[in-house]
Amino acid sequence: MAYLIYGIIDSMNYKMMIQYEGTRYSGWQKQGNTQNSIQGRIENALSRMADYPVEIHGAGRTDAGVHAYGQVADFHLQEGIEAEEIREYLNHYLPDDIDVISLETAKERFHSRLNAKEKVYCCRIGTDAYKQVFERKCRYHLGQKLDVKAMRLAAGLLKGKHDFRSFCANRQMKKSTVRNLRDIEIQVEEHEIRLIFRGDGFLYQMVRILTGTLIEVGLKKRVPEEMTNILEGRQRQLAGFTAPAQGLTLMQVMY
Amino acid sequence: MAYLIYGIIDSMNYKMMIQYEGTRYSGWQKQGNTQNSIQGRIENALSRMADYPVEIHGAGRTDAGVHAYGQVADFHLQEGIEAEEIREYLNHYLPDDIDVISLETAKERFHSRLNAKEKVYCCRIGTDAYKQVFERKCRYHLGQKLDVKAMRLAAGLLKGKHDFRSFCANRQMKKSTVRNLRDIEIQVEEHEIRLIFRGDGFLYQMVRILTGTLIEVGLKKRVPEEMTNILEGRQRQLAGFTAPAQGLTLMQVMY
Repeated sequence: MAYLIYGIIDSMNYKMMIQYEGTRYSGWQKQGNTQNSIQGRIENALSRMADYPVEIHGAGRTDAGVHAYGQVADFHLQEGIEAEEIREYLNHYLPDDIDVISLETAKERFHSRLNAKEKVYCCRIGTDAYKQVFERKCRYHLGQKLDVKAMRLAAGLLKGKHDFRSFCANRQMKKSTVRNLRDIEIQVEEHEIRLIFRGDGFLYQMVRILTGTLIEVGLKKRVPEEMTNILEGRQRQLAGFTAPAQGLTLMQVMY
Repeated sequence: MAYLIYGIIDSMNYKMMIQYEGTRYSGWQKQGNTQNSIQGRIENALSRMADYPVEIHGAGRTDAGVHAYGQVADFHLQEGIEAEEIREYLNHYLPDDIDVISLETAKERFHSRLNAKEKVYCCRIGTDAYKQVFERKCRYHLGQKLDVKAMRLAAGLLKGKHDFRSFCANRQMKKSTVRNLRDIEIQVEEHEIRLIFRGDGFLYQMVRILTGTLIEVGLKKRVPEEMTNILEGRQRQLAGFTAPAQGLTLMQVMY
């Protein structure tokens, strides 16, 4: 009976994977003007299709300017509509910097954020003098060489289950700031360095502060051993700068 | 004495390599509003540095919306300035979708276009349903599968020294339309097909008309054998459509 009262009989839950270039947006989460956020854009299109307000939940609340290669979101519709039909509708109405790359029905209780087991973020840092025309929107142009060996030592100390309060931009954070940072891989490419972060969850701006701190190690402004003190100190000002959003991409969400 | 009269004693010739995303521009060549063309933008910056009008000559006159990974251009300055200093000045004043990736002194008589021995163009065609957010500015989104085997047969017939009048958008072309198209390579990638054209020179929109014609073969709207008739007919209307500019990039100029 409860189902009937809340009117969710025959409703359908959907899971979708989304790609976006975040350059033009205020981030994933809608705030005020819904046209400025990825969530708002997708909700507007879905609500237009459904003819009633549809809310979506994303796995990761990417900041303004951060991109996604594989963001995941879920939403309910009051009646089942063929998944591919929804995907085509959305892609028809969404701007060309947002693309729903897949959409499927999901179990009734599937929740993109709460069910996520691991998230993978990639931060690309341009390390030579080139402005890199074709990559400029998705790479942070540092323009300096980095000491990768020192960065790998520091990354080794940051990996694992720690209290990451020093790497959290939310100073009033009341919930636990303990996270399991399963891996930080550092890939050296021709004109850039890529930092790949894997973890069960990330605090507000945690990836960008980790990246900024590792860059400072790579520039020899800090020694790798400092990482232990930063973690133990549990104060934002102990860690490094917040790396710019443009280099960061949410790559994958694992369930 | 002639040198003194024309005032080119101590002048210096320079060669530069330029990368640009052509999306925002009316093409390489300046016409009217110089701010709309790549050439105009670079000339404005150079003239500002030199304090007198400086003209540059590009190897390829890319169309509106066409990109360059390695465009080459040359220019004279009345007095020798250190090459790296010029490059830094230009990159400081140029917008972030144009980048001078190298700049060096050149022989007095070096001319980017006249001395070019071979040019390489790449045309990227998206062949699946994805909108491809991160590649959308540099790939033509066709969204259909192509018969690559048929395209390779057609490409084989187009290769070589031919009169390419049927593949030239300039109907009043009075000069020779014979060109040596040394190779058309067709690469199959995950979400796209790449056509790589190598030749001693290309007519106006030749690469885009070749691409459009090969796409029509790939879509089975034409049979490969037609290529011979198109070449022999020497009429633009015999060939296929002009593929959109956004997928095309001038990759390299060889001397």
